[in-house]
Amino acid sequence: MNDCIFCRIAAGKIPSSHVFQTEDTLAFLDIAPISEGHTLLIPKQHCSRLDECPVQVLERLVLVLPRVAAAVQKAMRADGYNVLCNNGRSAGQVVEHLHFHIIPRKMGDGIFHRWPSFQYPEGKAELLAEKIKQELQK
Amino acid sequence: MNDCIFCRIAAGKIPSSHVFQTEDTLAFLDIAPISEGHTLLIPKQHCSRLDECPVQVLERLVLVLPRVAAAVQKAMRADGYNVLCNNGRSAGQVVEHLHFHIIPRKMGDGIFHRWPSFQYPEGKAELLAEKIKQELQK
Repeated sequence: MNDCIFCRIAAGKIPSSHVFQTEDTLAFLDIAPISEGHTLLIPKQHCSRLDECPVQVLERLVLVLPRVAAAVQKAMRADGYNVLCNNGRSAGQVVEHLHFHIIPRKMGDGIFHRWPSFQYPEGKAELLAEKIKQELQK
Repeated sequence: MNDCIFCRIAAGKIPSSHVFQTEDTLAFLDIAPISEGHTLLIPKQHCSRLDECPVQVLERLVLVLPRVAAAVQKAMRADGYNVLCNNGRSAGQVVEHLHFHIIPRKMGDGIFHRWPSFQYPEGKAELLAEKIKQELQK
């Protein structure tokens, strides 16, 4: 897609700090990182969200993902990493081309320290699980 | 693994609010959700991190992931969702059995509103990209 910034990066029309590529995938540094070495992995073929991505495209991406993630962690001398895929604007997706954030992490770095979890009142979890099950049966 | 809580959930030894399962994968509600319908997708076979997971296990998981994510979004009448996989304690991984969080999101819900991005000084991105490339060539 001509107006998609990640399609243009994949086509080499916009420069980026590449770290890895295959025929179908490209990994490059996020220009607005939240930790040093924060990398994005994308399919070269345009799709906007995980649930709109052809299975073959997703399979190829997933073969590459652990390898890139392990390399990012090692190169940054990090202790771990988050893999994050935001789908939809409400979820923080800014560029509407599927991308996995690989965010190297060090102990106590304070990133994502807010994890606002709660407990369901009795019976609520079963109710929600049932709703999701029904969607999956459609 | 006997002492792994997710292995025990997968084996039916600990109850959970199941939403979906295949021969190799299980999706169930997180008991400490950060939004209603927050679901975990795991491989039944134990592996701790993405980069330690056998390729076949990961492939099967990824075939299921978009389907469960789309159902979670629809059932919760959400506008989007995050898929998050924490690897290592520094990254917030609490249970050392690979799991993907599927977190349904609604516009303005305030979850993950802190995204502490920064800019690299000139030349830094190229330096980091080179380090990651070198790791990938090992």
